[in-house]
Amino acid sequence: MKLCRFGPKGAEKPGLIDTDGRIRDLSAHVADIDGPVLARETLAALARIDPVSLPLVDGDPRYGPCVAGSRQFVAVGLNYADHAAESNLPIPQEPVVFNKWVSCIGGPNDPIILPRDSVKTDWEVELGVVIGTRASCVGAADALDHVAGYCVVNDVSESHWQLERGATWDKGKGFPSFGPVGPWLVTADEVGDPQALALWLDVNGTRMQDGNTRTMIFAVAEIVAYLSNIMTLEPGDIITTGTPPGVGMGQKPQPRYLKASDIVTLGITGLGEQRQECVAWQAPN
Amino acid sequence: MKLCRFGPKGAEKPGLIDTDGRIRDLSAHVADIDGPVLARETLAALARIDPVSLPLVDGDPRYGPCVAGSRQFVAVGLNYADHAAESNLPIPQEPVVFNKWVSCIGGPNDPIILPRDSVKTDWEVELGVVIGTRASCVGAADALDHVAGYCVVNDVSESHWQLERGATWDKGKGFPSFGPVGPWLVTADEVGDPQALALWLDVNGTRMQDGNTRTMIFAVAEIVAYLSNIMTLEPGDIITTGTPPGVGMGQKPQPRYLKASDIVTLGITGLGEQRQECVAWQAPN
Repeated sequence: MKLCRFGPKGAEKPGLIDTDGRIRDLSAHVADIDGPVLARETLAALARIDPVSLPLVDGDPRYGPCVAGSRQFVAVGLNYADHAAESNLPIPQEPVVFNKWVSCIGGPNDPIILPRDSVKTDWEVELGVVIGTRASCVGAADALDHVAGYCVVNDVSESHWQLERGATWDKGKGFPSFGPVGPWLVTADEVGDPQALALWLDVNGTRMQDGNTRTMIFAVAEIVAYLSNIMTLEPGDIITTGTPPGVGMGQKPQPRYLKASDIVTLGITGLGEQRQECVAWQAPN
Repeated sequence: MKLCRFGPKGAEKPGLIDTDGRIRDLSAHVADIDGPVLARETLAALARIDPVSLPLVDGDPRYGPCVAGSRQFVAVGLNYADHAAESNLPIPQEPVVFNKWVSCIGGPNDPIILPRDSVKTDWEVELGVVIGTRASCVGAADALDHVAGYCVVNDVSESHWQLERGATWDKGKGFPSFGPVGPWLVTADEVGDPQALALWLDVNGTRMQDGNTRTMIFAVAEIVAYLSNIMTLEPGDIITTGTPPGVGMGQKPQPRYLKASDIVTLGITGLGEQRQECVAWQAPN
């Protein structure tokens, strides 16, 4: 089952993707796609609905982030061996954990707003994991039971702020618009093995990243288990699981960062695609 | 005005502290003390209520965290020069920013649950800043306009996980129970100058920390402005602003960390007091 949220920012409605790829309106069944809806029983109830019985959504609405109300957006760094190498950083012995401020979460096709004076804004296609039931101190064998589904995440990063402005990475990871999430939350049963998904990312039509989750250093189950031992994972939380090689910082002969009017497209097998236009910073309204 | 939340965990009601220090029930006026309630107009409306007209709360209920639904719990590190020195770290040139997972937020007197196998759980009394209106790219001169009020925070930390387990501090800062917040959210008008507040913390009745916000390296207004340029601050977000000297890690001749049955008490001028008993880790239910 593919769930989504569609409509203007802040006024999204819940939707379901039918077998023809069209959006069906789920509003009569749930108020939103958020943590409580991701419980196993609720998802099972939604799966019993005949999509044809749901109103077809006209036109080509905006997609919002595929899950609402996320209170934790956890990120794992350097989780592909080749990416650690291109970053000139050692392969981690345990997951590298950092935070993306939840205020950065946006729709999959919303613009990337370049931070004021940014010179090192970078792209990172990643597999997003959406928690369905609370996970605290679980083992890897049980960890995937707590996962509602998966989605595409662009872990947009400002490398200068991430690496050159003090002790933690968090400064460069949560600027407004730095967390495109979606278009769909694809339920775990439909995804199957999360360690067999191809990921890709293009900038202006040129392939920059081309990887597969099979080369992750720490598998999704290990990540969920690890995190559940240092924090409580709650329904609706998003974990983004690291990026394969090909980020801007690692380009040769010199790094290549995002600039205004660049177009970033990215996707993961079965999870849909995102498209972002980069726009220059503007003073907030 | 002093606002609070009282009652069992997950079922707290909104309250107001009257001039005799007793809790009055605000349920008839607002559903909870959360982001939307912290808007200037709503706070002004609450301030016009005669506390005597509100039902007196019987007994001695538990305090919950003084603000509900916080989606970002931002922390500033090494923000007191003497504390940076005791940590053997240089005085930062700009704020050190890290994250406390919001799932760690608890009531001011709830137990501190020592993480499994923890050997370096530490205390940190800190001034908490609660955001009242969205702040994005604001300057220091306007920053305090976005602050609803202040509260006591114990930035409980596990130093081994913070410093010895990989790239960021976030791993050691967000274990369950590591974020006691409250007892009160004291509105900014009542607090006055946030840079003239005494902070203290005792362990088992022995004074360990005794500081004053006047010795902060970066003042609250500077912190809010700085953060608003790397992320969007939303109503209900909490910023904890660093700790004065006297943490366990800095004790001489050797560090002194928390163990089961230790009692931590802490407070800040005008913002009330917290009391936590440390308890051994137990498997979650």
